[in-house]
Amino acid sequence: MHNDTYFINEALKEAEKSLAEGGIPIGAVLVKDGKIISRGHNRLIQNDSVILHAEMDAIENAGRLNHEDYLQSILYTTLSPCPMCSGVILLYDIPKVVIGENTTLMGAECLLEKNGVEITVLNNLECKKLFEKYVEENPESWKNELSKVGNSTNVCDF
Amino acid sequence: MHNDTYFINEALKEAEKSLAEGGIPIGAVLVKDGKIISRGHNRLIQNDSVILHAEMDAIENAGRLNHEDYLQSILYTTLSPCPMCSGVILLYDIPKVVIGENTTLMGAECLLEKNGVEITVLNNLECKKLFEKYVEENPESWKNELSKVGNSTNVCDF
Repeated sequence: MHNDTYFINEALKEAEKSLAEGGIPIGAVLVKDGKIISRGHNRLIQNDSVILHAEMDAIENAGRLNHEDYLQSILYTTLSPCPMCSGVILLYDIPKVVIGENTTLMGAECLLEKNGVEITVLNNLECKKLFEKYVEENPESWKNELSKVGNSTNVCDF
Repeated sequence: MHNDTYFINEALKEAEKSLAEGGIPIGAVLVKDGKIISRGHNRLIQNDSVILHAEMDAIENAGRLNHEDYLQSILYTTLSPCPMCSGVILLYDIPKVVIGENTTLMGAECLLEKNGVEITVLNNLECKKLFEKYVEENPESWKNELSKVGNSTNVCDF
């Protein structure tokens, strides 16, 4: 049986794949019964997309699962999920999310937590390093990405 | 200057396009400065997708806009937006959403409202009729769709 570190490393491989494509290094894998059933990575830059975050890509690549399949799934993502990705997790009732790190960017974890989704934050150094290196080496590109979105961390402040 | 009825009718045309493709009749348009800048419709069935709801499709089809563009946009959708679609609205700070109807299915409007998104529900009969007709004529297919998702309306009950 693989552990969280194994699966987050697989999500990291996806992040590295995105980086190699000229994209933002964020990756995700969807796991069911201890097996990876789909993989995905951020495709905003390389696919000229605004919806293909790593989590969305992985969930899309899993195909049209049944509710019971989602209920037995765990989503691994290298970075804290934004409101859209948190929304898709709630939509399909994915009960558990394992997050590589949330210090470089905090998403809408509050929304997941408050809706009973089990969250584990690994504080994984490799996830952090890869993302920080990207931001450091691509300051303009990352500034541009950040400028497109609102503040995701406060969506539960009501 | 076109009014809400004009734009919701354009979203309805998208819903009808989906129906003609064998899909679920939900449509959306994104409007900026009184003009439609993108259109979209639900593609779950015809594209074998789990993320291409009408709102997601319209927002994706608008391309990679700047934050200022999103801040001046209005999203028109024939049906109340789910948690994922509400999440993308919050992610990009779209300040206003006009909803055809929310009686056949209530989405995560609470989340939008509580985050300061201006919501108008038109109670548009054409939107309601088209959707009800679909459900009536495709009971198994719609039951199958509903069986895949969780309850979207209670995501703010915390």
